[in-house]
Amino acid sequence: MPETPQKAESLIGVDLGGTKILAGVFTGGMKCLGKAKVSTKAIRGPDAVVERICRCVHDAIDECDLDLKRIRGIGVGAPGAVNSEEGRVIFAPNLKWENVALKKAMEKELGVPVFVENDCNLCTLGVYETELSARPKHVLGIFLGTGIGGGLIIGGKLHSGFNRTAGEIGHMVIEVGGAKCGCGNRGCFEALAGRSSLFKKIQSAVRDGQKTVLTEMLGPSLEDLRSGDLRKAIKRGDKFVEKIVEEAAEYTGIAVANLINILNPEVVVLGGGLIDALEDEMMAIIVETAFDYAMPGTTEGIEIVASKLGDDAGITGGAVLARLMSSS
Amino acid sequence: MPETPQKAESLIGVDLGGTKILAGVFTGGMKCLGKAKVSTKAIRGPDAVVERICRCVHDAIDECDLDLKRIRGIGVGAPGAVNSEEGRVIFAPNLKWENVALKKAMEKELGVPVFVENDCNLCTLGVYETELSARPKHVLGIFLGTGIGGGLIIGGKLHSGFNRTAGEIGHMVIEVGGAKCGCGNRGCFEALAGRSSLFKKIQSAVRDGQKTVLTEMLGPSLEDLRSGDLRKAIKRGDKFVEKIVEEAAEYTGIAVANLINILNPEVVVLGGGLIDALEDEMMAIIVETAFDYAMPGTTEGIEIVASKLGDDAGITGGAVLARLMSSS
Repeated sequence: MPETPQKAESLIGVDLGGTKILAGVFTGGMKCLGKAKVSTKAIRGPDAVVERICRCVHDAIDECDLDLKRIRGIGVGAPGAVNSEEGRVIFAPNLKWENVALKKAMEKELGVPVFVENDCNLCTLGVYETELSARPKHVLGIFLGTGIGGGLIIGGKLHSGFNRTAGEIGHMVIEVGGAKCGCGNRGCFEALAGRSSLFKKIQSAVRDGQKTVLTEMLGPSLEDLRSGDLRKAIKRGDKFVEKIVEEAAEYTGIAVANLINILNPEVVVLGGGLIDALEDEMMAIIVETAFDYAMPGTTEGIEIVASKLGDDAGITGGAVLARLMSSS
Repeated sequence: MPETPQKAESLIGVDLGGTKILAGVFTGGMKCLGKAKVSTKAIRGPDAVVERICRCVHDAIDECDLDLKRIRGIGVGAPGAVNSEEGRVIFAPNLKWENVALKKAMEKELGVPVFVENDCNLCTLGVYETELSARPKHVLGIFLGTGIGGGLIIGGKLHSGFNRTAGEIGHMVIEVGGAKCGCGNRGCFEALAGRSSLFKKIQSAVRDGQKTVLTEMLGPSLEDLRSGDLRKAIKRGDKFVEKIVEEAAEYTGIAVANLINILNPEVVVLGGGLIDALEDEMMAIIVETAFDYAMPGTTEGIEIVASKLGDDAGITGGAVLARLMSSS
């Protein structure tokens, strides 16, 4: 039986998050062959985290019965400002990283070309290459997870900006004097529609005596609350949770309208844990509110869609980056 | 005495506004040789306005003792969405124009190449080419006049977006449920810091009994209120007017921070009538508020400056566009 030729043709995408690291092995056609996940343990410092990333990469390769020789390149998404030419993480508050030469460290350990980008930029790139076959010129990616981040594709290319921090849409103030945000300001998009802020709102209301089926499901402290629980509560007829989610969707719609007014992209794609779990409950409100608030003439022919990539947007984008960079 | 050669080397910029048309003749080095101004009279319809634009162009040429043969090209800024390839104004609410073939009509009348762009894009281009000699890659122009508009230069090029409406920053909502905007929404940047909204706020407060030196200066109805009057009132120690202007500057600072978070430009340049008249009173507050609100890491090395072009930003940008397009 003839053996498959041992060409370095597979690609790896890594999503480096504040709490977990996800790695996926992909074919050149962006089919996922296998995945692995480890906790980040950022508290142990950059060297230990780099070691954990490399271990996660090895695990993912092993999961699909390959070895490092078959890997053409690795694309890594990091949660912060990234100098992608040098593969350096400039700062990543969730990891408490400053100026970490991630590309260099990983290449030394693995002997495979490594490319680094901002995580939301990578998610946007992943969606762009695998879900938007019409290749629109200008695309905005909005990812609602614990926090909210964004990625911009302008003229077919990622736009990182002067300090490589473009796309920090979660800290766009949309309600001056509104809810307090983790960044210290008030009324940021993230403080009004991010998962953390929704959970805090619910927990605080429950402490103040609000009735909800969530406490029947999870106990009075709601400690293990997840996005999926909100969907379950709404399906069970919980009007309180429904209202909280609707408000978040309205704020998101206003944020989308702002960004359409500012950037006038052809496609706005929403993703992240909150959208994955609550797509049916949120998307129609987001789209309606955005079209209602955006200036006349700005929205003609614009699509506002939910990504189907879910948690895999980051690793998919990483593999896309690795393919782009290792072929150029 | 040898005559100057009759080469078509001069450029014309036209700023087509809702109330007035301004035309300026420029050398290739962007020195203004002469200007002319006529009222727009949009109510008479597009054909009449085109005729008035052409008359204004003739007046400006005559003002500097030239004739049309010496004009290499004309760049026109229109207040709305513009298809610049075709030189067509897609829609311009202040003129009540839809789908006006401005380039074609003007070229037929004048026999000189005409190029059309959105007015705030042109202002940004004018500032970029004549005031920002370091040629930053990414620039955001913010123009505070009757309303508020913006222009984006990304990667050294104007970014117009999918429907050519990018830069509608005046309708970015920054205070959900805030002051009512002419667009129908509430809490738009323009409704909080545009000249019209400031004037309305002052006039409404005066009707409610607020004391201000403005009524001594202009009479109780404040009918002929101008931006410069606000500066004079502040200089005369009017704390009420000072507070109104400070609030507008704070809102502008928050809007600038939002845009830095989203786009991460290298330079943010502010212009327009309100900034021209109140630069000393507003700029320091705008810069301080923007740096305070923007995410850490996004603002390093970013400049926030006021343009010195004043009312000439549009015609300068028009001449720059004409130079760019007629040399390519």
